[in-house]
Amino acid sequence: MTFIVNQWYGAIWSQDLGDAPVARRLLGKPIVLFRTDDGVAALADVCPHRFVPLHLGKVVDGRAIRCGYHGLEFDRTGACVRNPHNAGRIPPAAKVESHQVAERHGMVWIWMGERDADPSLIPDYSFLDSADPQHISARDHLEIRSNYRIVVENLLDLSHASILHDGILGNDEALKAESEVEEQDGDLTVRRYMRDIPAPLLLDLLYKGDGSRVDHWADIRLMGVSNLLNTVGIAEPHTGRGPHGTGMRGAHILTPIDDATTLYQFCAVRMNPIAHDPERDAEIRDQLSRVRKMAFAEQDGPMMEAQQRLIQDPAVDTSRPALFDIDLGASRFARRHDKMLKADVSA
Amino acid sequence: MTFIVNQWYGAIWSQDLGDAPVARRLLGKPIVLFRTDDGVAALADVCPHRFVPLHLGKVVDGRAIRCGYHGLEFDRTGACVRNPHNAGRIPPAAKVESHQVAERHGMVWIWMGERDADPSLIPDYSFLDSADPQHISARDHLEIRSNYRIVVENLLDLSHASILHDGILGNDEALKAESEVEEQDGDLTVRRYMRDIPAPLLLDLLYKGDGSRVDHWADIRLMGVSNLLNTVGIAEPHTGRGPHGTGMRGAHILTPIDDATTLYQFCAVRMNPIAHDPERDAEIRDQLSRVRKMAFAEQDGPMMEAQQRLIQDPAVDTSRPALFDIDLGASRFARRHDKMLKADVSA
Amino acid sequence: MTFIVNQWYGAIWSQDLGDAPVARRLLGKPIVLFRTDDGVAALADVCPHRFVPLHLGKVVDGRAIRCGYHGLEFDRTGACVRNPHNAGRIPPAAKVESHQVAERHGMVWIWMGERDADPSLIPDYSFLDSADPQHISARDHLEIRSNYRIVVENLLDLSHASILHDGILGNDEALKAESEVEEQDGDLTVRRYMRDIPAPLLLDLLYKGDGSRVDHWADIRLMGVSNLLNTVGIAEPHTGRGPHGTGMRGAHILTPIDDATTLYQFCAVRMNPIAHDPERDAEIRDQLSRVRKMAFAEQDGPMMEAQQRLIQDPAVDTSRPALFDIDLGASRFARRHDKMLKADVSA
Repeated sequence: MTFIVNQWYGAIWSQDLGDAPVARRLLGKPIVLFRTDDGVAALADVCPHRFVPLHLGKVVDGRAIRCGYHGLEFDRTGACVRNPHNAGRIPPAAKVESHQVAERHGMVWIWMGERDADPSLIPDYSFLDSADPQHISARDHLEIRSNYRIVVENLLDLSHASILHDGILGNDEALKAESEVEEQDGDLTVRRYMRDIPAPLLLDLLYKGDGSRVDHWADIRLMGVSNLLNTVGIAEPHTGRGPHGTGMRGAHILTPIDDATTLYQFCAVRMNPIAHDPERDAEIRDQLSRVRKMAFAEQDGPMMEAQQRLIQDPAVDTSRPALFDIDLGASRFARRHDKMLKADVSA
Repeated sequence: MTFIVNQWYGAIWSQDLGDAPVARRLLGKPIVLFRTDDGVAALADVCPHRFVPLHLGKVVDGRAIRCGYHGLEFDRTGACVRNPHNAGRIPPAAKVESHQVAERHGMVWIWMGERDADPSLIPDYSFLDSADPQHISARDHLEIRSNYRIVVENLLDLSHASILHDGILGNDEALKAESEVEEQDGDLTVRRYMRDIPAPLLLDLLYKGDGSRVDHWADIRLMGVSNLLNTVGIAEPHTGRGPHGTGMRGAHILTPIDDATTLYQFCAVRMNPIAHDPERDAEIRDQLSRVRKMAFAEQDGPMMEAQQRLIQDPAVDTSRPALFDIDLGASRFARRHDKMLKADVSA
Repeated sequence: MTFIVNQWYGAIWSQDLGDAPVARRLLGKPIVLFRTDDGVAALADVCPHRFVPLHLGKVVDGRAIRCGYHGLEFDRTGACVRNPHNAGRIPPAAKVESHQVAERHGMVWIWMGERDADPSLIPDYSFLDSADPQHISARDHLEIRSNYRIVVENLLDLSHASILHDGILGNDEALKAESEVEEQDGDLTVRRYMRDIPAPLLLDLLYKGDGSRVDHWADIRLMGVSNLLNTVGIAEPHTGRGPHGTGMRGAHILTPIDDATTLYQFCAVRMNPIAHDPERDAEIRDQLSRVRKMAFAEQDGPMMEAQQRLIQDPAVDTSRPALFDIDLGASRFARRHDKMLKADVSA
């Protein structure tokens, strides 16, 4: 189990971390997240006394988590700050590993590496901050039982939209589109432009709702190793790709739970929304939330989980995959991943 | 995990393979079965592109299976015959392992060995082909969580009928019967003759339905390594065994799913049925289907699965089983199996 | 998987062993328990013929267990005493391992070591024998998915009552109490005395039922390696600990099922009960049964099971626990356990 640790990973949507501590397994380790008066804390979810999970306890006085077994309290640095028993003596070994945390763009970010975390490296999802509540889908998440690299490959690969998500995110006429791959400023971007095709259902929802023909473009950008941002646009046929038309931007924030499980956090915002009454906008927002989650949970999810099972199957030889033209993004990602892993370990 | 591969194994009842591809694990490998215009195909259930299961796709144009992830198509030889994306280039590595298949006696047979499959070696279940629909039980199957050798031993051992299936397939008075074992023309047959006993329920159903005393004989023949055929007969007491009386023949077609799981496929046909009206015949046929499945699923199944668990239990020493007179068939099978395995590997 | 085998372990409450054989996994081995005319028998739960569990069979003639597969019968010494088939020949290998058993204090005790079992070493739970039916709680049990040493530590550690069982078995005012540890006559005892505190719910139930302040003492004694007996008392504040007041005694009889699972058998008896009418006594008895089981099943259980999972988690380092003053009993137990294990193995 090897992960690139000196990176910011999305740990939990801010909205999902309230007064109670929350347990998450991240990068193969049990972590407890909780809010203190000084911000979110992330500790190893293991009391150093009897090795029970701290998340079974509770947050006290806005500054510490109290173990539910014997009441020992640990602050956000992991130091034991109270032993309620007898004379209250605290032995030096009573410490818990703590991790660096930042809260930004509605997400709690965690840095589990040894190096100092640089907040400027938090991926830029600022489009979420300024989003009109009318036009932002639910901040949601899924647990996908496959390695995160499989999920990144899935997202960088725009071609599967026409097969796996046929009708919803792509269709037959979109199949001939070529993809471009670009690496710039440390990000990896895949772009696709489909001219004069029938609008797939999800894009039609944002457009005229009548199955009109459109020009359709889709970009997806990988920041760091597992944080992605996609932009899809639609406009009148033959008007070229650009800032005109309508569409949406989506955040796809992936975090390895362990070698074979990924925390997939997502949210989308409409761009240049076509004017509607608030009721219709609310309807569109709800459908956007529902249809996207359905596509991830019922189409991508089972496919990627079956892929993970076959890769782990001793009867299946996966040493020589067949590479097609559509795999350019995935191939670049594999190279990029290896390079980042090497840099991470040697640092 | 070692299997005898140069053998015909029953993969699926023909009736259960329709328009949609079906996934089966056979001899430890994931296999997808589907119908083409040129007959049933059996491929490795793994797309060589992203290693997802082909059975999640669909059959197209009566000649290929289309992967549900990216739409790549593979014909019955395993060759990639279409890439729907861009210019449609197909790399040489885009091939899937295929297996030899034959359809006979209402069953799809698969040959997973390296050698050329000889159709004349398909076990002879022709009694199923000519069966009167009035008198043939459901073609059914179960997944038994034990090694197939345990299931073969169970079937070759006619003595357990009086204990595990007491009342249904045997009873106390049948206990004293001696068994004979014979090897002929490559088959192993166990025979048993019980004189003047009360008819057990399932046989009584085929006979007078009043618990009369009968002479009862039972034979079971093992063809190859895991395909069995049994014949049971009942007649007036003291009339001797032979072609007179009534009874049934049963197909027991076993295929290893993996080391610890067996696909158990079965079906029975009444022999010399006593004349009834069609309604009563339909009733008998349904009861025959139900009672046999119940005996396999609720009596043999749990016993064999518990046996498998104990054999795998590190706390249990199974190196020295106690051998009884009733184990003659099982002992001969063990020797036969070892010999066939050796021949299979050295070939 | 190493257990101390030359010890008496509680196998099953006598009340729970009726006419049918019962399967239990004890010290990592499958065991079948059944009643014969000569007392309870404990055999390996494995027929030496086909290695199926004997508990799937039945007890015959008050003297043997009959295998459900082929009807072979084994007496309480494990000897095969009947083969119902053919001439009934019994091969010498047809033997099952048997264990020494005693029935005392309403419990069936098993001795799985090689040495001769000494009945005088059966832990003294005679307070159960003389208990007034009005005042004895249900003889109950739970399966805890953690190693038995974790459960012993939990029981020897009286301090967690005020945190994990806050309100029910302890409270804030009890936190300052000091514990004493004593080893005498081969037993290890932890004692605690809490002066002038509000009576926790379970003790209040036995006392005035109005949340009065009390002096409260609690002792717990470990006999052998996993059999415990606790005594809790309550009395008027500032009257000192002693035989006055009221309270209860509890049996906690632990048996390793395997390395990571414990059979936890328990029962409590009121001591010096305050006089009530029979209806109120029955109510108190039922509440005592319910509240104790709830505390074990819903508070201790999940905590100890989470502890076991973390200890088995390769991402968690448990090599250096932080030791607090409250761990004196647990530390003494660890030393005692190591010594007993060494003596057990070398014997």
